[in-house]
Amino acid sequence: MSSNTNARQSWKVPASIISKRTSNPIRAIVDHIKVKPNANKSMISLALGDPTLFGNFKIHETCTEAVSKQLHSYKSNGYPPSTGYLHARQAVADKFTLPAAPLVAQDVIITSGCSGAFCNEGDNILLPRPGFSLYQTLADSKGVEVRYYDLLPENNWEMDLKQLESLIDDRTATVVMNNPSNPCGSVFRKQHLLDFLAVCERNHLPVIADEIYCDLVFSGNEFFPLASLTTTVPVLAVGGLAKKYLVPGWRVGWIFIHDRNNIFNAEVREGLNSLSQLILGSNSLIQAALPDILHKTDPAFYDETRVQLEASAKLSTDILSKVPGLKVIVPQGAMYVMISIDIAQFKDIPNDIVFTEKLLGEESVMCLPGSVFQCPNFIRIVFTSPSEVLQEAYTRMAEFCARHHV
Amino acid sequence: MSSNTNARQSWKVPASIISKRTSNPIRAIVDHIKVKPNANKSMISLALGDPTLFGNFKIHETCTEAVSKQLHSYKSNGYPPSTGYLHARQAVADKFTLPAAPLVAQDVIITSGCSGAFCNEGDNILLPRPGFSLYQTLADSKGVEVRYYDLLPENNWEMDLKQLESLIDDRTATVVMNNPSNPCGSVFRKQHLLDFLAVCERNHLPVIADEIYCDLVFSGNEFFPLASLTTTVPVLAVGGLAKKYLVPGWRVGWIFIHDRNNIFNAEVREGLNSLSQLILGSNSLIQAALPDILHKTDPAFYDETRVQLEASAKLSTDILSKVPGLKVIVPQGAMYVMISIDIAQFKDIPNDIVFTEKLLGEESVMCLPGSVFQCPNFIRIVFTSPSEVLQEAYTRMAEFCARHHV
Repeated sequence: MSSNTNARQSWKVPASIISKRTSNPIRAIVDHIKVKPNANKSMISLALGDPTLFGNFKIHETCTEAVSKQLHSYKSNGYPPSTGYLHARQAVADKFTLPAAPLVAQDVIITSGCSGAFCNEGDNILLPRPGFSLYQTLADSKGVEVRYYDLLPENNWEMDLKQLESLIDDRTATVVMNNPSNPCGSVFRKQHLLDFLAVCERNHLPVIADEIYCDLVFSGNEFFPLASLTTTVPVLAVGGLAKKYLVPGWRVGWIFIHDRNNIFNAEVREGLNSLSQLILGSNSLIQAALPDILHKTDPAFYDETRVQLEASAKLSTDILSKVPGLKVIVPQGAMYVMISIDIAQFKDIPNDIVFTEKLLGEESVMCLPGSVFQCPNFIRIVFTSPSEVLQEAYTRMAEFCARHHV
Repeated sequence: MSSNTNARQSWKVPASIISKRTSNPIRAIVDHIKVKPNANKSMISLALGDPTLFGNFKIHETCTEAVSKQLHSYKSNGYPPSTGYLHARQAVADKFTLPAAPLVAQDVIITSGCSGAFCNEGDNILLPRPGFSLYQTLADSKGVEVRYYDLLPENNWEMDLKQLESLIDDRTATVVMNNPSNPCGSVFRKQHLLDFLAVCERNHLPVIADEIYCDLVFSGNEFFPLASLTTTVPVLAVGGLAKKYLVPGWRVGWIFIHDRNNIFNAEVREGLNSLSQLILGSNSLIQAALPDILHKTDPAFYDETRVQLEASAKLSTDILSKVPGLKVIVPQGAMYVMISIDIAQFKDIPNDIVFTEKLLGEESVMCLPGSVFQCPNFIRIVFTSPSEVLQEAYTRMAEFCARHHV
């Protein structure tokens, strides 16, 4: 009794192409690990990049009170503009502006997440390998071809710039650079960043600089915002409260539009404004609290966080570098260390995924196999757990490695 | 001195196609209004659908305290799962489950916004006219063809179901239904919803039901969740804290997966889970506060909000329906009223956009022209301002209409 002969003839409702190509490489691998933890040992996860899990990293009360003040003012419950409250954008600009990379409020877009603004289906994008898997998830969902450039463990995970440059063609829309790095825990030298910018310069390649771990660097290293080192290469820099302020769940980040010679001004700035309308901005309370969070937090808080992370990094390096079969690439910042597994030294562990599975099954210690970062035969450890937990986990790992050693 | 002959040859960086097709019809029209308000009269905006602007609608302190409790617990600062905390999903399911439309935690996805999960480029989607402009923005950004079905002002803005059905073909992915309606302020009768479901049933058309204004209905009307009226048509229902709890800036909403006969189970459920990873969920504090917000808020709060809105609706209708040249379509719910302008009765006002411009320039009263909702020669008024402000605005509008009357 249809009155429309063109109508849909069945109830088959397929998922959209976009949703089908939106997959998380971490889940694709981790969900296939069917091994159960050893019921006789307490579970220790070194897999999640979330410093809030254990209570040992606590946010500064200035941040809590800043949000509480907004909450009890009853004045920050309405819709912020899609690019963020102007006073929040101003506070972020004031905090992060530099003589060599000046920022005004209009250069800051407050976000709830971040995805590329100048890629089209059929374009390609250069991503770091090993690298944060969400980049690929976002690129895949938009139908953008991913080309990986290598980070070299023997050079403190510096970029293989020769290989990177060989990947560029006229459909290359942008290159994503991540410094300090997840999962590598590396911090790039100034000269390396200048060499990278020279490649971008001669190939007219704009950069997306993921600098969410900015300032989380250990003694002897220094963080240089990429945009502060160039007057010619336009940079979109991505940051946020998540890591430095230890509140990843608050979901407030930002994009800095570091234009150079009005290259972005023509279209990209407007494009970012348009895209910000699709999600209509992030939580109003946190946005309204940004001026206090950014400008009133005791500077000692940042130092304490860094010192605590550095101690955990050193503990991890000291213990694990003595374990036969493992090789630690010493972390320089962030909250991660990548450990190389010398497969030849193990009798029954053919790769990082089996290593991860057996470690979980025998020792109830969970870490991520490097394969989820496109980096086989490494494992990534998050060292934000309390030191006694790290020590217990590493002791178990040492026993595990000894047991499986040839 | 390029070492790559395929490289990009210039610094031209165009915006992406996605960002270019992401436009907001409201901005496209409103940004072209160049008229300045009358400097001799205080500015009154009746344009923004945000009940928090004036302080007369205040959120319940249970909601504030629920968030404060989470904030001071220091335990809800980490990453929630991309589909939301399980206890938050459970609290939402418990609150909204119905015998005829049961919900468990897994049927609830906590969102920061909402967009379609089963449309592809080349598909088409049916949207209401007049309707909320973000639907079109989202569809355009995804390259989905928009087909408008009409809401009929002479029938309390009920859907023209015959016309709606004639638009369906085998590439029609879904129909968006909005009840109670923005911008119409209408609330559909049960029989009308049943008739709509019959169309969907015989055309195998799944529904996206935007029910964000659920329960904001005035005396003599009743809100029926669409999913509670069907055992055969699968429904994705969209809701959130924004309107009923008066906190649009908090950015926490949800999607209910009301599957029927496992139609969604095959693919769409997984597709929604995948898409939720693109923005990694909404603010952790508010999510963690959801159980208290939803289950401990004094029920009198909802009644008070509704009574206050209804009084404003009545005030608007009473005054404006006496103005020659205007015709009020009496609102039944939400916070909006659409007013028809009889252009023939005005000597120098050819359409709704000129009406809006002149009203702003002469009386400093801002409302949205119906054209932004695909509904020319109407204006939309948001009646959440305090009653003395509404009275002042309506007095000015009456004088304005008298002045321009033939």
